[in-house]
Amino acid sequence: MGVTSVAYNPKKPIVATASDDTTWKLWTVPNGDLIMSGEGHLDWIGGLAFNPRGDLLATCSGDGNVKIWDFVNASCAYTFSEHG
Amino acid sequence: MGVTSVAYNPKKPIVATASDDTTWKLWTVPNGDLIMSGEGHLDWIGGLAFNPRGDLLATCSGDGNVKIWDFVNASCAYTFSEHG
Amino acid sequence: MGVTSVAYNPKKPIVATASDDTTWKLWTVPNGDLIMSGEGHLDWIGGLAFNPRGDLLATCSGDGNVKIWDFVNASCAYTFSEHG
Amino acid sequence: MGVTSVAYNPKKPIVATASDDTTWKLWTVPNGDLIMSGEGHLDWIGGLAFNPRGDLLATCSGDGNVKIWDFVNASCAYTFSEHG
Repeated sequence: MGVTSVAYNPKKPIVATASDDTTWKLWTVPNGDLIMSGEGHLDWIGGLAFNPRGDLLATCSGDGNVKIWDFVNASCAYTFSEHG
Repeated sequence: MGVTSVAYNPKKPIVATASDDTTWKLWTVPNGDLIMSGEGHLDWIGGLAFNPRGDLLATCSGDGNVKIWDFVNASCAYTFSEHG
Repeated sequence: MGVTSVAYNPKKPIVATASDDTTWKLWTVPNGDLIMSGEGHLDWIGGLAFNPRGDLLATCSGDGNVKIWDFVNASCAYTFSEHG
Repeated sequence: MGVTSVAYNPKKPIVATASDDTTWKLWTVPNGDLIMSGEGHLDWIGGLAFNPRGDLLATCSGDGNVKIWDFVNASCAYTFSEHG
């Protein structure tokens, strides 16, 4: 399925990508090692953004949720579900 | 409904998210406290952007309007309605 | 018609917005004075980006063209038409 | 076909644009010289992002792949195909 968004980490040679397959992935550049695959959204991921320090990623989805991901623990740190 | 856009505040640990439910929301990261829910657009919100200082947010919508939001007063500071 | 994209100028209190009405507009923030209305694209504008100095804007459109806009002369400086 | 995304290089007067025609292009600003045409994706390109140094570009596509492009060698440095 289509990969809809891509963002560079502001501090490290890492890319995050979001897909209609409901996952996002974190890769090293340019060698392409997979660091993390973010699973938990139930629908397409519409956007993603790193914080300025580059240690957190926010994703938003067609499932109505926003998730904050923590790379140190390789897990979802918080799910915002208060949108409509 | 789907959450279509997400942006990190350039200065503070805050995220703004925009939804097809016509609202945008401002949250703290990572604890997820809701700071402000922006209501006033009449259709989907297509994009959002913080100013470089991080004290204003611009949103644009399917309703043909652009709004500038002021966090200090927790209100819409201006509505641009001159697009087509 | 829907306003699909918004970008803050990186240097000045100015916002650019793009619409399905084929135009983009440049506004002051927060007072909302219209500085420039960019006309010339023949279809929806899909994206816009300021250069880091904030004196040029690039727009891309469903008409297959990319345009570079010059604020000093309030005109289109160049039209790239080599896409597909 | 429609040009869907545009990004400014953070370091040089160069713009990258992505199209539904499956290609992306790298241009000089404002004179419009074509530096590179990125061919290899098999479907629409949904997003593009420069790294902070401005020497690599990431693109993502409806074909399910993400590609990292190297301007020095004017070639695709890596294709990530692990989505979906």
